[in-house]
Amino acid sequence: MPGPETAAAPEQVAELERLVAERRFDQIHQRLGQFGPPDMADVLEALPNEAEAVVFRLLGRERALDTFEYLTLASQERLIKALGDREVAGILNEMSADDRTALLEELPGEVTRRLMNLLTPAERDVATRLLNYPEESIGRLMTPDYVAVKRQWTAGQALDHVRVYGRDSETLNVVYVTGPGGVLIDDLRMRELLLVDPSTRIDQMIDEQFVALHASDDQEAAVAVFRKHDRSALPVVDSDGVIIGIVTVDDVLDVAEEEATEDIQMLGGVEALEEPYLSISLGRVIRKRAFWLVLLFLGQTLTATAMGFFEAEIASAVVLALFLPLIISSGGNSGSQAAALVTRAMALGEVGVRDWLHIMRRELGAGLALGGLLGLLGFLRVAIWRFAFDSYGDAWLLIAVTIAISLVGVVLWGSLTGSLLPILLKRMGADPAASSTPFVATIVDVTGIVIFFALAKLILTGTLL
Amino acid sequence: MPGPETAAAPEQVAELERLVAERRFDQIHQRLGQFGPPDMADVLEALPNEAEAVVFRLLGRERALDTFEYLTLASQERLIKALGDREVAGILNEMSADDRTALLEELPGEVTRRLMNLLTPAERDVATRLLNYPEESIGRLMTPDYVAVKRQWTAGQALDHVRVYGRDSETLNVVYVTGPGGVLIDDLRMRELLLVDPSTRIDQMIDEQFVALHASDDQEAAVAVFRKHDRSALPVVDSDGVIIGIVTVDDVLDVAEEEATEDIQMLGGVEALEEPYLSISLGRVIRKRAFWLVLLFLGQTLTATAMGFFEAEIASAVVLALFLPLIISSGGNSGSQAAALVTRAMALGEVGVRDWLHIMRRELGAGLALGGLLGLLGFLRVAIWRFAFDSYGDAWLLIAVTIAISLVGVVLWGSLTGSLLPILLKRMGADPAASSTPFVATIVDVTGIVIFFALAKLILTGTLL
Repeated sequence: MPGPETAAAPEQVAELERLVAERRFDQIHQRLGQFGPPDMADVLEALPNEAEAVVFRLLGRERALDTFEYLTLASQERLIKALGDREVAGILNEMSADDRTALLEELPGEVTRRLMNLLTPAERDVATRLLNYPEESIGRLMTPDYVAVKRQWTAGQALDHVRVYGRDSETLNVVYVTGPGGVLIDDLRMRELLLVDPSTRIDQMIDEQFVALHASDDQEAAVAVFRKHDRSALPVVDSDGVIIGIVTVDDVLDVAEEEATEDIQMLGGVEALEEPYLSISLGRVIRKRAFWLVLLFLGQTLTATAMGFFEAEIASAVVLALFLPLIISSGGNSGSQAAALVTRAMALGEVGVRDWLHIMRRELGAGLALGGLLGLLGFLRVAIWRFAFDSYGDAWLLIAVTIAISLVGVVLWGSLTGSLLPILLKRMGADPAASSTPFVATIVDVTGIVIFFALAKLILTGTLL
Repeated sequence: MPGPETAAAPEQVAELERLVAERRFDQIHQRLGQFGPPDMADVLEALPNEAEAVVFRLLGRERALDTFEYLTLASQERLIKALGDREVAGILNEMSADDRTALLEELPGEVTRRLMNLLTPAERDVATRLLNYPEESIGRLMTPDYVAVKRQWTAGQALDHVRVYGRDSETLNVVYVTGPGGVLIDDLRMRELLLVDPSTRIDQMIDEQFVALHASDDQEAAVAVFRKHDRSALPVVDSDGVIIGIVTVDDVLDVAEEEATEDIQMLGGVEALEEPYLSISLGRVIRKRAFWLVLLFLGQTLTATAMGFFEAEIASAVVLALFLPLIISSGGNSGSQAAALVTRAMALGEVGVRDWLHIMRRELGAGLALGGLLGLLGFLRVAIWRFAFDSYGDAWLLIAVTIAISLVGVVLWGSLTGSLLPILLKRMGADPAASSTPFVATIVDVTGIVIFFALAKLILTGTLL
């Protein structure tokens, strides 16, 4: 079928489901022809589980292999369980090593062991090696499918080598030049190989300047390196400088998007879901939210305790209670701003723990300026109501002053807490994104109550109190 | 110097700065040799502005060109202003078209026009065309540097063509097969060209199935397509299906990271900074934060108004005021969770406006379950204090019930608001990420006060009230 690939419409999925129910396999086979592997994967995932396995079997070996790598891990897991050992062996041995690692690490331990036995000895060797790297490490993203050439070869020999061994390589933009023992010496763009005289020695083409990732480094580090160097693939070396694989930027794009998703969810006060919002079960999403919600609730009960200390003040000046939510939420808002800015800057590698003093000075300035602005607005709010509606009685000026000064203090305190909490968390080895907006707000609420009432006692004793 | 590229240490930067001050140009030149272009760019950016221009001039034409593309837009702008027209012309004509577009769109209009006149007619043509696409569109990410082959050629002819015209191509993994008028017919992996017999006709190798981007589509769409199809480059077509450029995944990685940064900042209640946190001026960061902070403050003043309606109730039952922050913040927290989950799912294309009913049903379930859980904890809090500290008097049971029911209502309301607000914003053509945590909290605070005091009046009238 000519033209760009067609994305699957819901009707097409419904039609396939009907054909499966009616066992019209020839018609199904015919309809599948229109989908490229990524869209075929979407169709399979939209089907009910039994129909998914039936349609997958009808794809034919070649297309089944191509499609399998585009499926989500959950679908891959379901199919692996539904298929026979021979089919599974075929798929696993043909999968690219990085995608296979992701699948094997997702499965329960005993399933992984059973599957490892289905691999050819060579592939089992690769799989074991990759699974030995820690989760979230660059090693888990690697594929050993790259082309390496020797420094003493000519460009012509290198190109011949690419023709023979390049079939499985994940990229042909770059080949890697290695020395004795497989030590990485340089990377060489394919275009350079294509453009020089074939008798030119590789030796003469290299400058021994290259960028490499380390297998045990965190995947987040790979995102930063790829962003800085604008590459489509980077080599991975072990501690001896020996090249052991490459990482391609399409996998790094997935890592970057997943990290951002995790950070956004954590900043919103949820444990990272690790599944799409609409496909995760309601029970799981509730559990992911309950943990933080309960923890924050317990933290917030301190507000009731803190306010209990000022019960007498509230009783004699109810007006204070009226302004309390306004004041503490302003602190929470400025804290949420600061936490979002600093957490993201840390994730991008723009700031680190060592910058705490610099950040504190910035937030001191920003907090005072913004607090002053809100303090002025708070003062005006009281003054306007005083003259428009005759509210707040004779002590209105003192009330306005109390509110204005409290706002300066609470916004300043919120900005400092919001900016320094992510740094503190990082310093303690935790994820800075755990300094969620609700977490910062809870801290600032409790302290904001104390700041507000302490100031009120100081300013209003003798008049209202 | 052999081995991987060295990142710049602060001492090396300080050393360079000193050498510039002492005008020791030969020594500077010598030291620059150790840096690859991306690290050279980091060094330049760490230098004071005058030293930056001096060192850049000492790089030599070839390395200056390579380094320029790795500089941030701000540095590029500074250098363009510091350099003479001849130098600028050399740089602009050699830059890859996509990076040049980004620079030209950043500069003030009259500077852009002056620079356009420095381009060769052919490059000016390319630049004008790319600048005609809307900001944030895929057209602005394109580069016209790709290799196209004709369907009637042989594989051997195609490879010869690559050897001659492939020098400037941004990727050699894929060549594009075009028909009459430049209409894109297929994409072909370079490895297929390398592996077949050179006399094979391209015609026989293609299946006319391909994935293409549209120049006027939003850049966010490109991120989703790249993630789905795991490619390192994708062709861009105009409305007639004619190929007009390619987009490479390294640029898409930048887009993805920038979109995530914007969303995180907006969700935290800040306008998107568009500059790194540490390098943006304090004045600008304050302005970016002041807008939302003031807007939220004005919204929050409604809490004081809402509470004003219940002044009599607070005066006769101060205990209600003590629990108010706990209750409204619980609503804000559940709303913040829901907003983070739904906003991110929308950014990833997992949910759309059409899913609102599905989302509402989910949040109804989650809100009731989580609200019930917190309601139970709230009840226990009052009951435990009753028996441990003899607090809250005779009406403790009714107070506990009021708090428990309020928590169910407020958490449910928070979850619904947080999840549906991003959808509503999207429906109105605004950015869903504007439904920031503080924004949701402000809405939920005001309504939470009304829910709590209305329930209290209903339950406690005759006893406490």
